[in-house]
Amino acid sequence: MAWLRAATWGLFPRRGYCSRGSQGQLSPSFVEALKIVVGDPHVSTAAAVREHHGQDESVHRCQPPDAVVWPQSAEQVSRLAALCYSQRVPMVPFGTGTGLEGGVCAVQGGVCVNLTHMDRITELNPEDFSVVVEPGVTRKALNAHLRDTGLWFPVDPGADASLCGMAATGASGTNAVRYGTMRDNVLNLEVVLPDGRLLHTAGQGRHFRKSAAGYNLTGLFVGSEGTLGLITSATLRLHPAPEATVAATCAFPSVQAAVDSTVQILQAAVPVARIEFLDDVAMDACNTYSKLNYPVAPTLFLEFHGSQQALEEQRQRAEAITQDNGGSQFSWAHEAEARKQLWTARHNIWYALLAASPGCKGYSTDVCVPISRLPEILVQAKEELKVSGLTGAILGHVGDGNFHCILMIHPDDAEELHRVKVFAEGLGRRALALHGTCTGEHGIGMGKRQLLQEEVGAVALETMRQLKVTLDPLGLMNPGKVL
Amino acid sequence: MAWLRAATWGLFPRRGYCSRGSQGQLSPSFVEALKIVVGDPHVSTAAAVREHHGQDESVHRCQPPDAVVWPQSAEQVSRLAALCYSQRVPMVPFGTGTGLEGGVCAVQGGVCVNLTHMDRITELNPEDFSVVVEPGVTRKALNAHLRDTGLWFPVDPGADASLCGMAATGASGTNAVRYGTMRDNVLNLEVVLPDGRLLHTAGQGRHFRKSAAGYNLTGLFVGSEGTLGLITSATLRLHPAPEATVAATCAFPSVQAAVDSTVQILQAAVPVARIEFLDDVAMDACNTYSKLNYPVAPTLFLEFHGSQQALEEQRQRAEAITQDNGGSQFSWAHEAEARKQLWTARHNIWYALLAASPGCKGYSTDVCVPISRLPEILVQAKEELKVSGLTGAILGHVGDGNFHCILMIHPDDAEELHRVKVFAEGLGRRALALHGTCTGEHGIGMGKRQLLQEEVGAVALETMRQLKVTLDPLGLMNPGKVL
Repeated sequence: MAWLRAATWGLFPRRGYCSRGSQGQLSPSFVEALKIVVGDPHVSTAAAVREHHGQDESVHRCQPPDAVVWPQSAEQVSRLAALCYSQRVPMVPFGTGTGLEGGVCAVQGGVCVNLTHMDRITELNPEDFSVVVEPGVTRKALNAHLRDTGLWFPVDPGADASLCGMAATGASGTNAVRYGTMRDNVLNLEVVLPDGRLLHTAGQGRHFRKSAAGYNLTGLFVGSEGTLGLITSATLRLHPAPEATVAATCAFPSVQAAVDSTVQILQAAVPVARIEFLDDVAMDACNTYSKLNYPVAPTLFLEFHGSQQALEEQRQRAEAITQDNGGSQFSWAHEAEARKQLWTARHNIWYALLAASPGCKGYSTDVCVPISRLPEILVQAKEELKVSGLTGAILGHVGDGNFHCILMIHPDDAEELHRVKVFAEGLGRRALALHGTCTGEHGIGMGKRQLLQEEVGAVALETMRQLKVTLDPLGLMNPGKVL
Repeated sequence: MAWLRAATWGLFPRRGYCSRGSQGQLSPSFVEALKIVVGDPHVSTAAAVREHHGQDESVHRCQPPDAVVWPQSAEQVSRLAALCYSQRVPMVPFGTGTGLEGGVCAVQGGVCVNLTHMDRITELNPEDFSVVVEPGVTRKALNAHLRDTGLWFPVDPGADASLCGMAATGASGTNAVRYGTMRDNVLNLEVVLPDGRLLHTAGQGRHFRKSAAGYNLTGLFVGSEGTLGLITSATLRLHPAPEATVAATCAFPSVQAAVDSTVQILQAAVPVARIEFLDDVAMDACNTYSKLNYPVAPTLFLEFHGSQQALEEQRQRAEAITQDNGGSQFSWAHEAEARKQLWTARHNIWYALLAASPGCKGYSTDVCVPISRLPEILVQAKEELKVSGLTGAILGHVGDGNFHCILMIHPDDAEELHRVKVFAEGLGRRALALHGTCTGEHGIGMGKRQLLQEEVGAVALETMRQLKVTLDPLGLMNPGKVL
């Protein structure tokens, strides 16, 4: 019993989540046991370290774990899980900590498993368009590694997130309109189950293009937000690097005009690789932060991939549509450096908005609706944002029907925080009423559990709960998230 | 107790599958109860009807259900399931009966739920590229319905299968290389769970393009082969009909040359829509059955989609590659009628081979390997086929690494059947050794359960078993399949 977390861990009902005492420390002998698994320097119970691991980039308050461990291998993760399982200690996987829904908050304490030391690209099969990465590999690191192969990995959330974290979240980003999300680009996962067993969702070492063999376990773990197991390796689908690429921006007289253009471009089947919307507030922050000089107006950022010939054709068709809607001439970024500047500015919006509101934290909504309903909800959201008196910008992966209102919050202003919550929930419910979802890519995390219930209904929620209990019978994996 | 199936149904252990007496009849009162749900004319216990529903197009022997019912609505399916659940009677969903792995064999008798009377297209959202179909709608019926919308649904197994059956199987076909499989094209499912509850996997009425909301239930049910519930409606993703289309055939001096060309075309990132391989045996049967005059040689059937300009570019690049590999000049099919003839001939290969071997049944292997391993396994399979003395043709969706050996079997020749089994299992294991899968698109059904175990490993299989028990605790849904 000496390993048990002070007086509480051993007492939980078999299927319930463990509750947490205010002391929240692990027993010294349990910490010792962690050190035996991963080595002394790879365990920390220091307050600053725990604080750092108790929050992501969202407004959810810091809830630190009781210890942080840095395993070096799947075998160590497996032994850590078995140890935690035997003592009923919660486990929280941690990648880059760039989530936006409080996914890493240790609401019941326990052990935070920081997977960033496992950062090898263990297998690259260029002929098969696949790669195997450990959880410490980020999307930028992978693409740097792929630079000379003629291949790339397109899924790109704003942050330079870890790829396994992106798999856990079901992330997407600006290229999803053409290349799909993580759900479409994960071929296989290695997962440590809560009791320490090692699962290969599609069979060890397999990286085929398609399969009809049994239940789709890969699909079940993608987007499970660390609540079913710890992802220790991901086999990803790569794509041929486009022969040619060109990016452009286009300013519009109104939100409606920009979004109408998006819908029409998609309906005309122009195979656009990226089509991103930024409102005037976002453009202003973008100019300031990235030292640029775009018009401060509703704007589309577009990118086209293909042969030179194909680009020309796509460009012509897209530009004809935007001009019909009153858009400006396209402002082109042909060279790699110019395109990089454009997309870096886009990816840095979150940080740009934070920089424009010193002392604030950010909260991002994440609804996604059928594309035909996008103009109405986006225009309405923009108006309500004005009425609410909140400071916020709208941007979105509008090609997928997914957009974000990024709201700036003064951390000590409880009334403002309440207004943000009211706004966000209202927007979520409006998306649900339009047959949409409350989260396109950020996940449910802590804050959208009520909306999830409204979105999927009682039977689906009960089914998800049953799956959770089946795969994590002691409720130890990232408790308090999703369900 | 009067409803119970003669003396046996009530006696099964709670989680075990029910065993079946040789009499295999349902009690008259149970049949009466079925009639109360769906109406008298929509229940049959006639031997001929039951026989018809006890087998698909595979070699698996007929195992008839005890009754066949034709529900008219999801509500009726729900009541049927609740009735069967209360009496522990197995349920087997039935669509077009065109499966190839014995998926409809009623190995424990019970009620076959023939869903073909539910054949409405209940919702079409052209602007959102989505459609909602009941389980009686086949892929051809859907595409006929879509003809004037500028949209189409690309997934096309050989048979004119029902779309919900295709979802249940995780089917694909000739367009998967560009448009993906059912796994990529199902947005939402309405499922009647074994106890009769109605589940909407992504929430009722939702048809967004992407989501990160909770566990991916849609993905779990796609490919579950009727073992987790009865699919009563599917929301599918539609694609813009290509602006222009051109198809071609190209003959090669060897299997190796044809497959090498495929790999190189993919690696050159030519966005080919279809790339199908047929060996000399298949081409011969194709010529005879479809009254055509192709060279009897290893052949690729290709199709290109895009604008006229894009087609020209794709064509040039593909033809340069095939000619480098010794391929013939492309034989073109520009007009819709000529293309239809070409692809109808391709889709009819199964029937062409059966027609060429009167009195025989067909068995199709279905392995899928990483594309780089395709040449070696395909060439070797072709050689082993010769050595084995079996009659068979090879064809495949080689762009996905997926191919079929279609073997002709004299139903009364037990020794030949044994040789087929040995060949098929050997081929399956060779695919597994090359990091492939034993089934790219036909599913596990009855015959590949051992191979599934070898493919995914003990932990994944145990996880699948746990999921099955969770969602179907009485083991009533299509027992004896997959696991």
